[in-house]
Amino acid sequence: MSDTLHPSGVLSGMRVIEAAAFVAAPLGGMTLAQMGADVIRIDTLGGGLDYRRWPVTANNTSLFWCGLNKSKRSVALDLGKPEGREMAMALITAPGKDAGILLTNFPARGWLDHDKLKEQREDLIQLTVQGDRHGGSAVDYTINSRVGIPYITGDERGASANEAVNHVLPAWDLVTGQMAAVGLLAAERHRFRTGQGQHVKLPLEDVALAAVSHLGLIAEAQLGQQRERHGNELFGAFGRDFTTSDGERVIVVGLTLKQWQAICEVMGLREAVQALGERLGLDLNLEGDRFKARKELGVMVAGWMARHTFAQAAAALTKQGACWGKYQTLTQLVTQDEACSPANPMFRTIDQPGVGAHLAAGLPLNFSGAARIPAAAAPVLGQHTGEVLSELLGVTQAQYGSMCDRGVVAR
Amino acid sequence: MSDTLHPSGVLSGMRVIEAAAFVAAPLGGMTLAQMGADVIRIDTLGGGLDYRRWPVTANNTSLFWCGLNKSKRSVALDLGKPEGREMAMALITAPGKDAGILLTNFPARGWLDHDKLKEQREDLIQLTVQGDRHGGSAVDYTINSRVGIPYITGDERGASANEAVNHVLPAWDLVTGQMAAVGLLAAERHRFRTGQGQHVKLPLEDVALAAVSHLGLIAEAQLGQQRERHGNELFGAFGRDFTTSDGERVIVVGLTLKQWQAICEVMGLREAVQALGERLGLDLNLEGDRFKARKELGVMVAGWMARHTFAQAAAALTKQGACWGKYQTLTQLVTQDEACSPANPMFRTIDQPGVGAHLAAGLPLNFSGAARIPAAAAPVLGQHTGEVLSELLGVTQAQYGSMCDRGVVAR
Repeated sequence: MSDTLHPSGVLSGMRVIEAAAFVAAPLGGMTLAQMGADVIRIDTLGGGLDYRRWPVTANNTSLFWCGLNKSKRSVALDLGKPEGREMAMALITAPGKDAGILLTNFPARGWLDHDKLKEQREDLIQLTVQGDRHGGSAVDYTINSRVGIPYITGDERGASANEAVNHVLPAWDLVTGQMAAVGLLAAERHRFRTGQGQHVKLPLEDVALAAVSHLGLIAEAQLGQQRERHGNELFGAFGRDFTTSDGERVIVVGLTLKQWQAICEVMGLREAVQALGERLGLDLNLEGDRFKARKELGVMVAGWMARHTFAQAAAALTKQGACWGKYQTLTQLVTQDEACSPANPMFRTIDQPGVGAHLAAGLPLNFSGAARIPAAAAPVLGQHTGEVLSELLGVTQAQYGSMCDRGVVAR
Repeated sequence: MSDTLHPSGVLSGMRVIEAAAFVAAPLGGMTLAQMGADVIRIDTLGGGLDYRRWPVTANNTSLFWCGLNKSKRSVALDLGKPEGREMAMALITAPGKDAGILLTNFPARGWLDHDKLKEQREDLIQLTVQGDRHGGSAVDYTINSRVGIPYITGDERGASANEAVNHVLPAWDLVTGQMAAVGLLAAERHRFRTGQGQHVKLPLEDVALAAVSHLGLIAEAQLGQQRERHGNELFGAFGRDFTTSDGERVIVVGLTLKQWQAICEVMGLREAVQALGERLGLDLNLEGDRFKARKELGVMVAGWMARHTFAQAAAALTKQGACWGKYQTLTQLVTQDEACSPANPMFRTIDQPGVGAHLAAGLPLNFSGAARIPAAAAPVLGQHTGEVLSELLGVTQAQYGSMCDRGVVAR
């Protein structure tokens, strides 16, 4: 058995076959793998659509692919050949009480046709991440533009006020990835109780539409309240970026009354805020009124920040229990932030083939009832082909050699 | 039994007590509720920290709170009184094979102390969403600044190039909410097999750090490759916003080769792209080389867009199966987009008390083995207090009346 398998994980014993590319579905699979599930990724020989996705190293190894496939096993088959596709279908439908689970973002046809797979395993659970609900193509960025976020992001004052600001973080992919894990766990729970498998569909478009509904943005728009672009201001309360006397940038948030009072306490603003509230006819103990007075309050906080170094501000805010954060570049994050270092037990330095030693994250969920599974490298493409074919399908060494000869697997 | 309970849902029979505020934990609870779990939210009389969170209606009903608490039941108790806290602990630990599950983002002390709750129910599952792993305070926006995203978002050319651009979408909260559902389902699976409950901790900070690790951003920074700010350009491939001849804005993405070829086909760019590749010494069939040539390719695509109306561009791109999207405001989304209407079975027009009729989303996951649960309104605060106390704890009408008299519940 491979050293990527963890008998002590909260999901140990569960086996998932993943046939997927890009962020959402691979992230869903990795989430399960990092809880101890045996997640076996099937790729075509030479790698799939995301095998060279940027960022890449100087030798063209994808940091993206490695990052999203940690703790999995890798099987590589020539999926252009009927035998390769048959082998993939056999892996998906192989016996095992806690197996027969397929995670994919490829169309449910050919070797991923749900009905054909069900002929081989009646209780199969298949989860398909789709672009839209009709199965059409869409990616995170084409959906983000649809749901209105780029028009309310970014500077309200500058030249860009009429422009759209795309997000860099593929937020919809990240949410969808976790929802894929939710869907599989819920379907597996249902199967455990009823014996029935099913095909679960998860459209990326619907994930984004649901989120803007849940956050109140759809209702707000339907009620005719047009959300404006508010730059870096936190909508509906107090929070934005400020610059310290030595040029560092911090965000300070007064969302709850307690958080707001901590800011006032640190900065000695109680009386000035009281006077401002009276002048404006607002009750600045209410978050919405703080938002209405955000410009005036911002001037006060900015003034305090401009008179304090970062070290002074950080010490005072932390001592008072205020809610704040430093703006950091990614380089500062990896070189200066203790939370992004092996001091944080979620992180571990791994040695990724083709990349070398670097810090990698395990699972953010910390289960008191199961040992933390250390972050592990992504497999080399096809690394576990022979091992998995033997374990799941009983393929002998002789049969495997013959498959090599026919080019179905790589030697 | 309340009409918010769905015996046909994939999680029907599961019961979760939620004591939570803001986005992540309530979203995790709602995800379970929208799969048929009985999610009972406990609030203090008058509502908790997020009960007035913006956006709000003219009468100060929170669209945010309503949006994140759909399909739940609501119990309101005076948590300032010992009797109210005891009642809350009794609800959390009430009997039931598929109950004894607590979701919270409040500190695990007082009536939420895990050890004290375990005295009443040994197999309790508790999931606590935390700011950081030490239990410190943090919100989405103070974490986003830490992980480097604001410094790589927004216009690379304009005056804002040295500024930080906060996100508007609370992406880390949304991801954390789904991970909370993952954690509870995984822990419940574990309990079903072993009989053991546990305390699961989920730090928002770790969710964000793990995501930037998984996307390759931490490895990239550690390898000394500094991610630049690329404005609206999709990193590592081809994709950005363009303006049509009639002033509409669209995003066009050529991430995969197939997507890229569709763009070239629609716009008749094959030969020009071939010539450009030769001139630049790049193979524009490779996604990374398309990113290197993004400015030149962008000029070509922009030229085609400027010669076509939105209707022409949309028809041609759709016909060819290209990956594209329209930029819309939230108002355009709710008034013009078929996917954000009752034509999409995920949506339903609900009548939310205090708000009125508006469109609301159910679950993006579509289970073939269970009926889709229609989106349902959020409860009125305390709406189910009597019903739940009776069902779970056997509180009689006379006892309830006496609790009203003592102010533990509202009349």
